[in-house]
Amino acid sequence: MTGMLKEDSLKGKTIIVTGGGTGLGKSMGKYFLELGANLVITSRKLEVLEKSAAELEKETGGKVLPVACDIRKYDEVLHVIKETESKFGQINGVLNNAAGNFISPTERLSHRAFDIVVDIVLRGTYNFTLANGKNWIEKKQAGTFLNIVTTYAWTGSGYVVPSACAKAGVLALTRSLAAEWAKYNIRSNAIAPGPFPTEGAWKRLFPGEVAEQIDPLKRIPLKRFGEHQELANLAAYLMSDYSAYVNGEVVTIDGGEWINGAGEFNGLEAVPQDLWEQLEKMRSKK
Amino acid sequence: MTGMLKEDSLKGKTIIVTGGGTGLGKSMGKYFLELGANLVITSRKLEVLEKSAAELEKETGGKVLPVACDIRKYDEVLHVIKETESKFGQINGVLNNAAGNFISPTERLSHRAFDIVVDIVLRGTYNFTLANGKNWIEKKQAGTFLNIVTTYAWTGSGYVVPSACAKAGVLALTRSLAAEWAKYNIRSNAIAPGPFPTEGAWKRLFPGEVAEQIDPLKRIPLKRFGEHQELANLAAYLMSDYSAYVNGEVVTIDGGEWINGAGEFNGLEAVPQDLWEQLEKMRSKK
Amino acid sequence: MTGMLKEDSLKGKTIIVTGGGTGLGKSMGKYFLELGANLVITSRKLEVLEKSAAELEKETGGKVLPVACDIRKYDEVLHVIKETESKFGQINGVLNNAAGNFISPTERLSHRAFDIVVDIVLRGTYNFTLANGKNWIEKKQAGTFLNIVTTYAWTGSGYVVPSACAKAGVLALTRSLAAEWAKYNIRSNAIAPGPFPTEGAWKRLFPGEVAEQIDPLKRIPLKRFGEHQELANLAAYLMSDYSAYVNGEVVTIDGGEWINGAGEFNGLEAVPQDLWEQLEKMRSKK
Amino acid sequence: MTGMLKEDSLKGKTIIVTGGGTGLGKSMGKYFLELGANLVITSRKLEVLEKSAAELEKETGGKVLPVACDIRKYDEVLHVIKETESKFGQINGVLNNAAGNFISPTERLSHRAFDIVVDIVLRGTYNFTLANGKNWIEKKQAGTFLNIVTTYAWTGSGYVVPSACAKAGVLALTRSLAAEWAKYNIRSNAIAPGPFPTEGAWKRLFPGEVAEQIDPLKRIPLKRFGEHQELANLAAYLMSDYSAYVNGEVVTIDGGEWINGAGEFNGLEAVPQDLWEQLEKMRSKK
Repeated sequence: MTGMLKEDSLKGKTIIVTGGGTGLGKSMGKYFLELGANLVITSRKLEVLEKSAAELEKETGGKVLPVACDIRKYDEVLHVIKETESKFGQINGVLNNAAGNFISPTERLSHRAFDIVVDIVLRGTYNFTLANGKNWIEKKQAGTFLNIVTTYAWTGSGYVVPSACAKAGVLALTRSLAAEWAKYNIRSNAIAPGPFPTEGAWKRLFPGEVAEQIDPLKRIPLKRFGEHQELANLAAYLMSDYSAYVNGEVVTIDGGEWINGAGEFNGLEAVPQDLWEQLEKMRSKK
Repeated sequence: MTGMLKEDSLKGKTIIVTGGGTGLGKSMGKYFLELGANLVITSRKLEVLEKSAAELEKETGGKVLPVACDIRKYDEVLHVIKETESKFGQINGVLNNAAGNFISPTERLSHRAFDIVVDIVLRGTYNFTLANGKNWIEKKQAGTFLNIVTTYAWTGSGYVVPSACAKAGVLALTRSLAAEWAKYNIRSNAIAPGPFPTEGAWKRLFPGEVAEQIDPLKRIPLKRFGEHQELANLAAYLMSDYSAYVNGEVVTIDGGEWINGAGEFNGLEAVPQDLWEQLEKMRSKK
Repeated sequence: MTGMLKEDSLKGKTIIVTGGGTGLGKSMGKYFLELGANLVITSRKLEVLEKSAAELEKETGGKVLPVACDIRKYDEVLHVIKETESKFGQINGVLNNAAGNFISPTERLSHRAFDIVVDIVLRGTYNFTLANGKNWIEKKQAGTFLNIVTTYAWTGSGYVVPSACAKAGVLALTRSLAAEWAKYNIRSNAIAPGPFPTEGAWKRLFPGEVAEQIDPLKRIPLKRFGEHQELANLAAYLMSDYSAYVNGEVVTIDGGEWINGAGEFNGLEAVPQDLWEQLEKMRSKK
Repeated sequence: MTGMLKEDSLKGKTIIVTGGGTGLGKSMGKYFLELGANLVITSRKLEVLEKSAAELEKETGGKVLPVACDIRKYDEVLHVIKETESKFGQINGVLNNAAGNFISPTERLSHRAFDIVVDIVLRGTYNFTLANGKNWIEKKQAGTFLNIVTTYAWTGSGYVVPSACAKAGVLALTRSLAAEWAKYNIRSNAIAPGPFPTEGAWKRLFPGEVAEQIDPLKRIPLKRFGEHQELANLAAYLMSDYSAYVNGEVVTIDGGEWINGAGEFNGLEAVPQDLWEQLEKMRSKK
């Protein structure tokens, strides 16, 4: 998979990616750079950010500003804005990508575990969104929010319940501000990625036989994980002006996973072809 | 499970149930009778209807009018209205319950199979709805529509695709008219029942080992099928004036089936408790 | 509107209602009492609770335990459980009803305003849910959660954005645990009430002409607000065993408000009848 | 707005667009040609198709095959497939775009009006989908379906009820086959466009003052209609291999219209700024 947008599609834009030093955030940021954007990456670990920034600059020839930021603290978010404007002049897009999660039966979690995830994912996102939105509104600048959620933001899901609560909140934030802030030329959209694992994350988490039993590939109609560039293509589209009329939308990119699980009879996949033939013969005899 | 509403909750109301001679339609109709309603049941087979009508009258002491009707034919729908008004004076509620389905891989179906299901389910429902709605509007009578859909009306589902298309249409009809016809005191709601099998329907359909592999109970968090009275209780509520402020709503009663399938990590149910414990220990060591 | 369920439908059950001292929470609690339940009401103000408890006991002849609790604090939630079990033996249902809101353009809110609402609504609800769920699981008791959300929990809404974020989180919590905790005989459902104003709340908020311009009645197809008993009937159904097969569901009771706003062409309501006639004539001439 | 994808993004693909001779279908087809695809356009009027084909070939230098087809007739759909394969060798994508609609109060429509719209929109789409799907499965070819629906496919809408029923059915078809046919390398997605009017369609429909009262721009947060190229960009993305991991998704492109109408308090837009200031002062005095 290669990049899909025409050269320079994000030329002259400055985009902040929270959680941009590693994983999917880094992959999306890299593609923004390739399309001509200036990039700001934030996370709590400056060392990781600086290493990634150097790497990304070398690979793409673009400019990357790493700024350490605990997004749960409003002052630190303001600091990111100040640093960005000081280096790049203005901000055009914000990709709220930072997240945290505990995979666990809910009754095994403490209320503090809920607090931790909700603070990073929901509080972090509204802090970042509120600070940038107020800044854009005050300066009468247009801007674009893009928020990474999950398919369980609307369905809920056991075993990741704090994250489900928080991501649902982020989705509501997206849709609310799409309506309210459009008058300030601020768009808000979201992406719900399915499984885009970073190098065997799943198998590291669960040992062999269990990993097989709960293999997410079984749930995905397309029978493969997503590639980072596939997500980056979608993110770049939604961050660019090409999607100027898309507002308040969450685009799912999961190979059909959630809709496959949701549909009541999709499990009939397991019925062998010759049995369907027998059933048809029985029916036609009647 | 017993009936939940206070005695005479539907006293003085006349309710038509399409597909009311058998199965769930009959069960709902029976409870309407017990609550004091007059009942009209329709389907294509008069003989079945008459037998059911006699049975229901005997069991409940209520009045039941059986009228043969192919709901795909508008004239026959008009005939049901005429017969009902002639016997009971007026109509207060319509339960669109008649349905048809083919369980099959879609590529094994002909376009005619699609036509057959869509004609019964969607065309039949809008015929019945349009005729009754026009009648109520003309006579300035209030009325209540209640439509039986499925959870795959909004998620879609493989292996029942003609039905998915048709039921989705019925759901859109419900929500559209809830908005448009409320000014005429006509409410529109729907129920999406999960698996309420009529005497081992599933096992009759599929032979032993396949039936086990695709066992719907595995998908249902509550690990049981619904009871007919549970559906009847909900239907009676939505048909009664107690739900007068519920409008444009589809209520799901499926034990949590669809939401369980939809949530990305609900399959982690399969992880044994002791493995969770090991994982926690590993985490706390870090 | 009167109560709809048969006498003693909640006999022997003990139900906790957060935010149960006033408004809709009090109305729902009252009906639970009338149906035979023991009631526990909580909020931060003990004085208000005690007055309401006395009033409710007098009106219904039931038993009411008022317990002061700041649901943001887990210890205080545990205290409510302890007090309830000490007085009534066990807990059967929890109605998460406590809420807070700021109606305001989002850019006029501080990040602290977001924190306040999210802490009460989302954190408060997961605290209450987690503590009660763990208690039920440990004691192998069945239980029912019922959570009050809003229609903007899934659509989002401007001008109430902190509440939208928080209520979306509560809805995700509901659906997640419906799947995950059903195996412990714990059901989870929600209600999304539309406008059930408490004595002219709206007109107190906005002065005359503005109140008229933004009159919520214009958005509601049924052209009236809901009555407290209508909500109480639905809540009692979902709290009772009659809804034992409803799980993971959110039932909207809003007169059709949200679906009316959502449907693209519902505004054509404003086209006068004679214009439709003209249009039809023009069409038939072609 | 210009095209967004890299040159030759659809090179070597043959795409059929139903209803492709005019309007949005023609605009999307044109962009497919610009990206290197072969195009087949169908509708009932050969004359219109031939004129458009000549025009499109001249403008883009691509190849266009016009084939007359009444999509309600399965044989004519098969004929399109045969003609396409005869000219271009194979089919890679199908854009189900043909539609019909009556804008009218529902009680003014006959059941025949419902039949007409449902036959074109729903039956036409499943005919086209079934014939092409069977063909792809038989020949073991990969393929992509893209279906044009509406935002009222899931919300419903008054005044366009036959279309709402039919488009809801098309959405269910999309999601159902995304799950079921992914194993054959067949993807299924949809687009829900908001208002992309073709040269003042709205004002032609309604006279001056009514047109103003029901002005759709009032409902759209971005306060403008969409441009054809904006829709074409999205359609080309979803038709191309760049979206290979998007499956079972419906992407809305409506400027935020539906989500704005759906959110309960978005109407507070009408409250003037100075009133918010007064309200804040009152609040802070308390």
